[in-house]
Amino acid sequence: MNFESLSLKYDGKSLILIDQTQLPDEEVWTTITTPEVMYEFIKQLKVRGAPLIGVSAGLFLGLYAKSGVSREEFVKTCAYLRESRPTAVNLMYVIDKIKSLVAEKYEPNEVEKLAVEILNEDKALCERIANHGADLIEKNDNIITHCNTGGLATAGDGTALAVIKRAHEQGKNIHVYVDETRPLLQGGRLTTWELEKLKIPYTLICDNMASTLMRDGKIQKAIVGADRIARNGDFANKIGTYSLAIQCKYHDIPFYTAAPYTTVDSECETGADIEIELRPEQEVRGAKGCFGDVRWAPAAAATFNPAFDVTAAELVSAWVLDSGVFTEANFL
Amino acid sequence: MNFESLSLKYDGKSLILIDQTQLPDEEVWTTITTPEVMYEFIKQLKVRGAPLIGVSAGLFLGLYAKSGVSREEFVKTCAYLRESRPTAVNLMYVIDKIKSLVAEKYEPNEVEKLAVEILNEDKALCERIANHGADLIEKNDNIITHCNTGGLATAGDGTALAVIKRAHEQGKNIHVYVDETRPLLQGGRLTTWELEKLKIPYTLICDNMASTLMRDGKIQKAIVGADRIARNGDFANKIGTYSLAIQCKYHDIPFYTAAPYTTVDSECETGADIEIELRPEQEVRGAKGCFGDVRWAPAAAATFNPAFDVTAAELVSAWVLDSGVFTEANFL
Repeated sequence: MNFESLSLKYDGKSLILIDQTQLPDEEVWTTITTPEVMYEFIKQLKVRGAPLIGVSAGLFLGLYAKSGVSREEFVKTCAYLRESRPTAVNLMYVIDKIKSLVAEKYEPNEVEKLAVEILNEDKALCERIANHGADLIEKNDNIITHCNTGGLATAGDGTALAVIKRAHEQGKNIHVYVDETRPLLQGGRLTTWELEKLKIPYTLICDNMASTLMRDGKIQKAIVGADRIARNGDFANKIGTYSLAIQCKYHDIPFYTAAPYTTVDSECETGADIEIELRPEQEVRGAKGCFGDVRWAPAAAATFNPAFDVTAAELVSAWVLDSGVFTEANFL
Repeated sequence: MNFESLSLKYDGKSLILIDQTQLPDEEVWTTITTPEVMYEFIKQLKVRGAPLIGVSAGLFLGLYAKSGVSREEFVKTCAYLRESRPTAVNLMYVIDKIKSLVAEKYEPNEVEKLAVEILNEDKALCERIANHGADLIEKNDNIITHCNTGGLATAGDGTALAVIKRAHEQGKNIHVYVDETRPLLQGGRLTTWELEKLKIPYTLICDNMASTLMRDGKIQKAIVGADRIARNGDFANKIGTYSLAIQCKYHDIPFYTAAPYTTVDSECETGADIEIELRPEQEVRGAKGCFGDVRWAPAAAATFNPAFDVTAAELVSAWVLDSGVFTEANFL
């Protein structure tokens, strides 16, 4: 097993991850040697993107089991890593799957095998999404995207960004407009970096500039990821997605969301059932990262900082899942 | 003549301006003693807002004439200051008016009188806009605004922000949502500061968050300024205005623009005639100000950075001018 992506290197002996907090200027790769290093990597968002966190933790646990630790120690470490990011559903899913396996029989090679299966499934899902989505992209399209949904978010090529990558590989001569994605700037910091790596032409814009481009006929498609899709097709994604969808509707521009089937929540009827996590107020008062820590608003300014918003199904032209392209919300 | 506003102090002997680049953390007032100080203040955006730049330059020239300089020296200084910010139409308008006066007869007291008239007219326009606009605001309204349109942009209370101030003074128990207004952050830095000064409750948001508030019924009105209004009602304003207007339309929220009659350009038929100024690319790669200078995007990232966008008349519920509230574009 020799695997290498934009963000992860694995060869059955070591797991090496790129430190995403140092991007785009520095590419720092770190070998994950101990549970503590893995925990801090997740906690400090050095590895991010729900699928990638899950895959990374799984691969680490495989290596950790093979290092000869006792079952007791292993189970303790599972519980420890599970706490590193309480909102990461994929992380819990992967660790719980490993715990179930170990509950039957503690066999280090089997743990690794399961982790590699999870990695391969993630990669395969990205491939299928990319292939389905690329069918929607036409030659010379200018495509706008939001946040980061590529090889820094998954172990494969990503979701929305995988579609873009595939269309580019197909020689469709596309150009990408990247929303910077305030307040955490995943578009400005990470998607730009990925597109440079992939040599796909792009232009970075502030989140409030898309409409002007649309009015001037400079955007033909929009494609974004999804964190959770309700049965009726409403979906939660990074804050700013809903606003982009409304602008597309007004300008009659197709708006797509791309995600694996695991994102569809059959327990969730509509977007109204999705609770929106609020993040720390200070993130809106400035910007913070390896580039610095600045505050431009008054120190006591009240702010509102939802992590996600919910886009109504009526704004979605198609849902691109690994199982196919759906123009109606009949995925289940 | 004793005048004092949020940004300007004038008593017939000295002109003192607040340095807007130091806001919101520091309130630094500077006495404008020489043409060179005035020039740098305008050039470095320490004084900004088209009407405020014009008024400030006018008052300075009045004092400068009274200081006993020759007519030749005075006319040279007019030409010098006129170059400090080539895109500031108000600045040219004021200086040209003073030059016409001086061309007939160089009488320092008359120059000052004209400058004070311009100041008083600006203040009166703001008053009338505020009164007309406040009629549109209902009790307990939550109002969203964009950029900065208050006492830091004019010699009076401003345009859109003057409407908000008046509604607040009328005891309407309003709350303001402030778009941070990337990339230059006039909302995050300046409008927040003004609202704190005025003790008007507000919440700062990123430009991509308004839709979520609208969906949840948390915004009842939107009001913004205008840089130029075409005959058909299309108008140019700070980038992000058009996007906000589309979001209001989708959520059926009244969207107003407030401006003095001087903003209506009778030579301009529609928004298509308005050319959009492009600003330096690096502004989109990060943020810069007295708070620091940070870049989070790749150093070579291509960006698009329009200073303004054009909002179509069909998105405007009413144009609030000093001459009244217009629900159709029949201002001329």
